Amino acid sequence: MQMIYMDRVAAAALRPEAIEAMTAFLHDKVGNPSAHIHSAGIAAADYIETARKQVADLIDAPADELIFTSGATESNNLAIKGFLATKTGGEVLVSEVEHYSILDQSRNPFLANFKFLPLDVDRHGIIDPDQLKKKITSETVLVSIQIANPEIGTIQPIEKIAEICLASGVPFHTDATAALGYVPIVIRDSGISMMTLSSQTIGGPMGVGGLYIDKPLRLRPIFDGGNQEMGLRPGTENVAGIVGFGAACRGAGHDLSEKSARLASLGKKLWRGLESGIEHVEFTGHPEQRLPGHVSFWHRFIEGESLLLHLNMKGVMAASGSACSSNLKGADERDLRASHVLTAVDVPEEYCSGSISFSLDYSNNEHEIEYVIKIMPEIVRRLEAMSPVYEDYVKQRENRE
Amino acid sequence: MQMIYMDRVAAAALRPEAIEAMTAFLHDKVGNPSAHIHSAGIAAADYIETARKQVADLIDAPADELIFTSGATESNNLAIKGFLATKTGGEVLVSEVEHYSILDQSRNPFLANFKFLPLDVDRHGIIDPDQLKKKITSETVLVSIQIANPEIGTIQPIEKIAEICLASGVPFHTDATAALGYVPIVIRDSGISMMTLSSQTIGGPMGVGGLYIDKPLRLRPIFDGGNQEMGLRPGTENVAGIVGFGAACRGAGHDLSEKSARLASLGKKLWRGLESGIEHVEFTGHPEQRLPGHVSFWHRFIEGESLLLHLNMKGVMAASGSACSSNLKGADERDLRASHVLTAVDVPEEYCSGSISFSLDYSNNEHEIEYVIKIMPEIVRRLEAMSPVYEDYVKQRENRE
Repeated sequence: MQMIYMDRVAAAALRPEAIEAMTAFLHDKVGNPSAHIHSAGIAAADYIETARKQVADLIDAPADELIFTSGATESNNLAIKGFLATKTGGEVLVSEVEHYSILDQSRNPFLANFKFLPLDVDRHGIIDPDQLKKKITSETVLVSIQIANPEIGTIQPIEKIAEICLASGVPFHTDATAALGYVPIVIRDSGISMMTLSSQTIGGPMGVGGLYIDKPLRLRPIFDGGNQEMGLRPGTENVAGIVGFGAACRGAGHDLSEKSARLASLGKKLWRGLESGIEHVEFTGHPEQRLPGHVSFWHRFIEGESLLLHLNMKGVMAASGSACSSNLKGADERDLRASHVLTAVDVPEEYCSGSISFSLDYSNNEHEIEYVIKIMPEIVRRLEAMSPVYEDYVKQRENRE
Repeated sequence: MQMIYMDRVAAAALRPEAIEAMTAFLHDKVGNPSAHIHSAGIAAADYIETARKQVADLIDAPADELIFTSGATESNNLAIKGFLATKTGGEVLVSEVEHYSILDQSRNPFLANFKFLPLDVDRHGIIDPDQLKKKITSETVLVSIQIANPEIGTIQPIEKIAEICLASGVPFHTDATAALGYVPIVIRDSGISMMTLSSQTIGGPMGVGGLYIDKPLRLRPIFDGGNQEMGLRPGTENVAGIVGFGAACRGAGHDLSEKSARLASLGKKLWRGLESGIEHVEFTGHPEQRLPGHVSFWHRFIEGESLLLHLNMKGVMAASGSACSSNLKGADERDLRASHVLTAVDVPEEYCSGSISFSLDYSNNEHEIEYVIKIMPEIVRRLEAMSPVYEDYVKQRENRE
């Protein structure tokens, strides 16, 4: 069976450049990058610095303002916790559609002196910059708003948001996980103070990430220990992973606008195909201000999970909600709470566990889109036939006719 | 030039099994292990569970009591911070020769309610179990003592220590970083509550580790976010690294006693060769209760750093102090503070930056030992000739004669 992978927001297909760079690294005999006293250690440190330049180049940032972490979750935690550890109290403004690794910090007992205030989004998932302007007070110590949402694909007006924060003198952190490598990001002169980067969403290995930190900003490391990563991230670096992350960024940066146009066009094709092929579908996120190659929706009568399982049986892999918060480790442990992102964009709660997103990466092609468009109507019909809600709907429609 | 690597305490040579397993993994098309809804995600989760079993088997622990982390530094931080977050205050007993990722937590402002009390070691670096027994009070909430020290090679009487903690009802954490894969470790019925594991010291990739947690023990995760690793370590796992860690453990566990006997014999050969070939050498650590294949010493008249640089020029790579605390990023940034481990074992402070350790791994052989024994006397003579302290010593000796 043909296997079609469309879940880059959870982890994109590993780029060939990343596989190649990591394989070469694994066969090179290097030591601990902190062992500056011998050649094997120096060689490892060189690998890291090469990767740092590759990642920094993709966001047009100075390499010495970027540190490596174990992934977006750690970067989000370090950005918030590390910055707040330098303050005694205050307010933190976060959008209500952030990842759990941002939102759940509001409940962390060590951050009890800080008040996390949510910023509402509209029904397309967009933050109104005026709302932000009004909510920033003398108490505000930090603002955190993602560039793009992995679940509904919406891209925020980040430039305006950064401008407002800069004018108010409040540091601005943005989680670029879903955006990196798919939309152009320019740190230089952006007013952005911190940016979370993830390797896995751009086709680098999983479990690696980065945090850009504007130089004047001070953070306290979360871990105690060694002096790695400018003293901000103690612990020996995941050098193999960092090498892969660097190579993926190099690959993603090459012809980014061309690649992203191609993804956008594939995404539109999928969107239109689903729109015309299936009834009762409601697309989520902003129709224009969205990630290229990202299509998300819910179906009025079908559970998203059933749809995904049937798609998987046909070799098509897509996502329901955010993979990171998924708890489907077994039927007993199912976490059926509604996605906070979907409730934020006013999807009725009964449908919130029913959403689907297809997110395409560089490895997807037109034939795959056509295949998905072809198989979806049949799957939907079969599931509709099994749905009591759909049965009720049909009866009501018949009565009306 | 022949390159001889003898710095496993910083990072052992990557085992062929690890290279092979990681390369195969990189070519497999898997997704995010939390994406349980599709085959690519399930495949990734399977890789992790296979590795979990491999690592757990090496320490004879149940796989469901082991979580993966980004390395020993994170594991040490999670063990201490995660456990203390469930308490309101108390005393933590730690040996004075622990890694900085343990010791530096005593200064963490978030742990201000806890008092870290040091446990002294004798001149061989050994903790006296009676001292521990006396220091445990009703205030004691946690004890943390490493199995073996990476810098001086000393192995602690861990069984007795665990017994005392168990009898006192105080959880016992041990950092097994330097020991794993070189000495037998059996968790089952040991009384050990938590154990830090590192991949890189046993020939797995760098930047991966584990934490064994005895089931009844409750921890609070350091990071906020997803539900990965039994809810204790949010963030997508470094799956490639975990696969390599698992393979390295499988490799290390196979014929462990035979391999460790071979390393011990190579280490003894090196020790005797240095002892008979060079004057003014003082060996550190316990002569018997020590890691196999670990030889550490200081020289009365020579700086360890100069010796290491000269060794490196001859293709031999060894360590000075702990690589993790090394700050030698450039001549200006040198951190010349004495090693806390050496001061703890009563090495005069003026020699503490002068220590060397050779730590052998499975890749080293007899010829390499012979080569090191052969080149050391010449390097030492050359450095002695440049040493003003040595000059004084020779003059004094001549005067006496």
